Order: sequence, then structure tokens, then C-alpha cells
Amino acid sequence: MRKVSIIGVGQTRYGNLKNETLRDLIAEAGCKAIKEANIKRKEIQAFYLGNYDAVSFIKQNHLAPYGAGAIGLKDIPCIHVEGACSSGALAIREGIIAIGAGLYDIVLVVGAEKMNSLSTEDVTEILAQAGDYETELLAGATFPSIFGMIARRHMYQYGTKREHLAAVAVKNHSNGAKNPDAHIQKKVTFETVMECDRMVADPLTVYDCSLISDGASAVVLCATELVSNFCKKTIEILSIGQASDSFSMHLKDDITTFDATVKAANQAYKIAGLKPSDIDVAEVHDCFTIAEIIAIEDLGFVKKGEGGESSFSGLTSLTGEIPVNPSGGLKSKGHPVGATGVGQIVEIVRQLRDEAGLRQIKGAEIGLAHNFGGSGATAIVTILRRAN
Amino acid sequence: MRKVSIIGVGQTRYGNLKNETLRDLIAEAGCKAIKEANIKRKEIQAFYLGNYDAVSFIKQNHLAPYGAGAIGLKDIPCIHVEGACSSGALAIREGIIAIGAGLYDIVLVVGAEKMNSLSTEDVTEILAQAGDYETELLAGATFPSIFGMIARRHMYQYGTKREHLAAVAVKNHSNGAKNPDAHIQKKVTFETVMECDRMVADPLTVYDCSLISDGASAVVLCATELVSNFCKKTIEILSIGQASDSFSMHLKDDITTFDATVKAANQAYKIAGLKPSDIDVAEVHDCFTIAEIIAIEDLGFVKKGEGGESSFSGLTSLTGEIPVNPSGGLKSKGHPVGATGVGQIVEIVRQLRDEAGLRQIKGAEIGLAHNFGGSGATAIVTILRRAN
Repeated sequence: MRKVSIIGVGQTRYGNLKNETLRDLIAEAGCKAIKEANIKRKEIQAFYLGNYDAVSFIKQNHLAPYGAGAIGLKDIPCIHVEGACSSGALAIREGIIAIGAGLYDIVLVVGAEKMNSLSTEDVTEILAQAGDYETELLAGATFPSIFGMIARRHMYQYGTKREHLAAVAVKNHSNGAKNPDAHIQKKVTFETVMECDRMVADPLTVYDCSLISDGASAVVLCATELVSNFCKKTIEILSIGQASDSFSMHLKDDITTFDATVKAANQAYKIAGLKPSDIDVAEVHDCFTIAEIIAIEDLGFVKKGEGGESSFSGLTSLTGEIPVNPSGGLKSKGHPVGATGVGQIVEIVRQLRDEAGLRQIKGAEIGLAHNFGGSGATAIVTILRRAN
Repeated sequence: MRKVSIIGVGQTRYGNLKNETLRDLIAEAGCKAIKEANIKRKEIQAFYLGNYDAVSFIKQNHLAPYGAGAIGLKDIPCIHVEGACSSGALAIREGIIAIGAGLYDIVLVVGAEKMNSLSTEDVTEILAQAGDYETELLAGATFPSIFGMIARRHMYQYGTKREHLAAVAVKNHSNGAKNPDAHIQKKVTFETVMECDRMVADPLTVYDCSLISDGASAVVLCATELVSNFCKKTIEILSIGQASDSFSMHLKDDITTFDATVKAANQAYKIAGLKPSDIDVAEVHDCFTIAEIIAIEDLGFVKKGEGGESSFSGLTSLTGEIPVNPSGGLKSKGHPVGATGVGQIVEIVRQLRDEAGLRQIKGAEIGLAHNFGGSGATAIVTILRRAN
């Protein structure tokens, strides 16, 4: 496959955006990315859209030409991909493959979701449809309850503590407070998190759960051999791994690890010729605090079972050995489902370009993004490098 | 891009399949295709699923790993693509691109939809969400009414008559009567169609509308350079074109032609080095009878405006100059939305292999499939050839 780079990124603010429609969000992110890439609309040869469930949220389907129209793109192939919470990274991966095949030189990818049109109860049910409806949702198992079970098991098996979960929330809120695109730009103290009695699914309180956000993120992909025509600050995509795991929780051997993450990461490291210790900055899928703890284990940043203690010790802070979720993550930046995987790449691109402001990781040259869907049935791991 | 061929196909019967879940349908079609290709599950390196809206029909999302699990596929990348009624062809196209890129050698593509879980009114609304919710559905414009307007305009502009529409229905029911997989395997007479007073949206009666079907279709794609390892009766994919048109009806210059079809067809003909008269058999997207008439014009089989008369004259019958919809089409074979584009390819493969039984087009060597979404915002045209 031909090598692929990123020549422009764009993003809306994430949040409860009452005044913007899904069209508005897609248009804003897409147009910002096009402008940053300094290309004309007619130079874009295909459009990939990551969206989880606009049907349920706003009664709109056939989403790729809908989104393309909002951006002012005409005639070109438009493809909507869905992979639950990993819809965004999935769209990027399909775009990379199409350029890799030599079919296109320049592709626009947008991830977007408009979620705040409905109540929290309805959103929770819609999200639960990314799990197994027949064996899970019908029995009342939504994602907070599933990740509550996962957290309990991780505690039982590895001695992970409530304090470890809290440390993830505190760090991500601290990072989000430095991100002007974040849904909640507010620090929280360790004591506030520990004392919180708004239980969602034991042991997870509201501070352990990601946000229900509206938002869109976009990247312009370009064949690496052509980037010099467009942009000086390009970011190379070294690899993008994807794997799957059992769709249903009851079929998994071990719920304290996500097989798909491990396999996708191994693919990505192998293709890039890198190891976990080579990564300078990572955005990982912290749909719940326990998910970040497991992710840093599954990605090989720490040993299995040591994710809780490592998060607590500051290893993953902005100045730690492996900074994780400098954007604030799904916990604080927000989680507009279809946008999330693209937004992670936007953050890594900004970090590798030294454009991340107060949350900049000094000297970051290699970054990793980890996006997963449902209770881990889909996982995608991308490794990017600053082109010098 | 590397060349891609089809080494196996599989299909459920289409119909009102009360006893089968979506899982069952995907499993049946997928397993049949795997068996026909004579490969092992572990040889499949990626899984693409075309589905329009299982969320609304059966409350299930995150559909690619859901479907893969039903087939017994593990670990591999699973990708769900949605493109309204062209979701199936879109999934095939993404699979072709991934093999073309050299990323995989063997890919399974399944298209599936379970629609009969809901009432006709609900299904009509769900389908209408493939059009523009804000400017069309909110104003009451569902697809029957949109295609009713299109038919009226075609009649006004080109003198197309009610008899011409009826001839399409009669032909497709006659073909479907010869297809053991078809939803309705029953001939209808010209008089019955002409005398029908069950108006859906003037001038379209129930005989002008495609069916609400459950079903799944599957193809196994393989890099052409490797097909000799697997199968003797391979079908080459010569080209697959895709284009888009304005998402909203009010933005189209002319509603009697579908720009995306014309552009996708031109791409496909150009890449294949063929012209319309080289096609021996075609499956086209007859969601309504008028859509088939416009399709044969847009695909270049007849001159613009002559689609009605040509259909009436027998040009598109099984023994005509360009046989169209030998399977029975969406009208008689049925239209399980996400399956349709894959099912068209299954029919063309069977025709090119001389395995189409009573509806076989003698000596067919080159076939074309035309799948489109919504009111034409997405169109995909595929050209296939018998490998000798």
C-alpha cells in the first residue's frame, strides 16, 4: 500500500451544542480541515463519514451524501461507516486503504455525532445497541453496568482500587481544562471524585463515565508522495491496525482485557516497526475510567494488572513517562460517538505539530490513538509520526 | 489496484421470513458463500457488511462484529457500511478496494436486512430517512411520493405511459417466477397490472413498488492472481464505479435522470474499456418501475426518454437485446435493503456461470449491476466478466 499522511485537521468544539444541527457540525469540522490543508473542494476525491446512529438521534440516514452536501462536496464517492464508538477510526482506516490502493490521492474523513437531542435514558439505550441486544440489552445490561462489572473484576483480579479510577478522572479533567475544544473544561479534585455519591453502576460514579456530547472532527488524508504540494507540517500515518473480539460479553474468556485492542496494537506496532516504549503520547478510549486503565495495559505501556497503580502514580500525566489523553479524553473532552476516533487523531496531529497549547507534550514525535467500539468487539490502533 | 474476482456466492431466500433473525440470515448467506468458495473460515482476512438500518428494524447496531460472530469469524477487521439502498454494493466496493490495495487476499462481503419486524407504515418512514429528513420527510415526502413525482415528470417530458410502467412489472414478475430465491414467485398479467386500483402514489400502484423483504446475500472476493488456488468458475470484477448526487430533491436540476448513475456508469465503462452495447445482462435498481425505465436510459442501454417504450417493446426481456433484472429485480425478487446490492452481484455471477436455471441468459459473458440509494444520491455500477 502507498503511504498516507495527514495534511489538515479541523474540529468543532465538543459539548451540548443546542444551536447546531448534525449538518452544521459536519460542515464546520470539514471546512476547517479543508482550509487548513489549503486545498480546494474539487481536489477531494472521496468522502468517508464515521457516524454511529444519526437515525436514532435525529431520524436521518444515508449519511455520507448528507454530510458531503453540507460541506459542499459534489459527485465524489461518499461512504458512511459504522463501528459503534470506533466509527471514526474505522472511517479513517477505510480512507487510508483507498489512498493506499492508489484509487485516490486526497480523501476527506469526518466523524460526527449529534447526541443531545434526546434524554440520557434514551441515549443510554441507543448506545447499548452497540452491544448484543438479544443477550445483553434485553437483560438490562447497558454499558455502564457492563463496565461496572469489568471494573469489579479488575479490582478482584489485580487489586485495582477506587482511588486508581479516580486518578484517571482527575487527570483527564485536568487535561481537558487546557483544551479549548473540550466539552467540560474544568478541573476536579481527587477528594471531589472520591466523595461523589452519584453512583451510575457500582463502582462507577458519574466521574467514571464519559460525556454525552455533540461534535465533529475531520482530517484530510493525502498520499505521502504528494504532500509536499500541499502542506509543510505533515504527519505520517505509520500504521493502523484493526481487530475484532467476540460480540457478546458471555463469549469472552477474560473481561479484564480487550483482545481486539491487543491484536490491533500488535499489528500497528509491527507494521510501524515500533514498540510501546517508542510512543511519546497516546489518546486512548476512556469511555469509562476503567477502560483507560485496561487500555494502557492492553497497549503494552504497563504490565497487565498494573494499569491502576500506574495511572495513580502519574505515569500517564502530561509530564509522565507516557502521557495519555492530553486532550481530556472521552471523559472531559467529550464523546460524540462517531467523532471520537477522528478527534483522537486530531489531538495527536496537534501534539506532533507542537500546536497543543497548554497541554503540549514537549518534543512529541510519535503518537498513538486507540479507539474501540461496544464492549471491545472492534478496536483500531493508529500510530503517527511527525515528518521532519 | 490489484484485480479482484468472485470465488463464491451465497444467498438466503428473500421474503417475509418470520422465523429467521438477522443473525440467522447473515449466517446462512455467509456460510453458503464460504462453502461454495471452498475455503476455510480462517482464510477470510476481513469482513464487510452492508446493512441499512438494523437499529430501527431490530434495535441492533455495531453490526459488523455482530454479523461476523454469526458466521463464526474471529479476530479479523469487520466493517459495516451504510449507503441507504446501495449499502450492499458499497460494502462490496470497500472490500474490492481493500484487496486492490494488497491489504487482504480474501474478503467476505454480506448484505442483509430484516424488515418485516415492523408495519408497512413504519418501514416506509424508516426508508424515507434515506432522503432529506428536514426538507422532505418532515413535509410528508416518502419514497413512493418522490418516485410518483419522478414518474409524472418523465411522462410529461418524454411521453412515458402507464402501459410502459406496467410492462416493467409484468417482466420482472415473470422473471421472478423463475427464481427460487425470489420473494414473489408469481407471474402477473398486463391486464391485472393495468386494472389495479390500489394506488400508492399516483401514478404508482402496488405493482410499481418494490417489496418489503427479509434476506441476505454474500460474495467471497479474492485477488484475481490467487483464484486458481480456490475455484475453477471465477468471475472477474472488471470495474466498480461510484458517484454521488445532491442529497435533496430540490437541489437536482432534472429529476428524470440520476446524475450519480450516469457518472458511476461512465467510470465503470471507462475502466472496463467497454460500452453499454457490450453488456449481455444487467441487474438494475428497480425500487419502482419508473426507476428501471430511468436506469436503462442512464446506463446508456437506450436513448434518453426512450426507456418506457423500450421496456414495453421487449428489449429488456430474458430473450431481448439487453435482458434487465432476470432475477425478478427489487420488484419480484424483493428488496431487503442492505442485501439488494450484493444480491444483484449474486445474480450476475450465476448468470455468467450459466447457473441461472429457467431464467438463464444464453451465452452471457459480461454483466452489469446497478445499485442506488435514496432518491439517487449514491449510485454504484459494477461490471463483471466470466473468466475463461
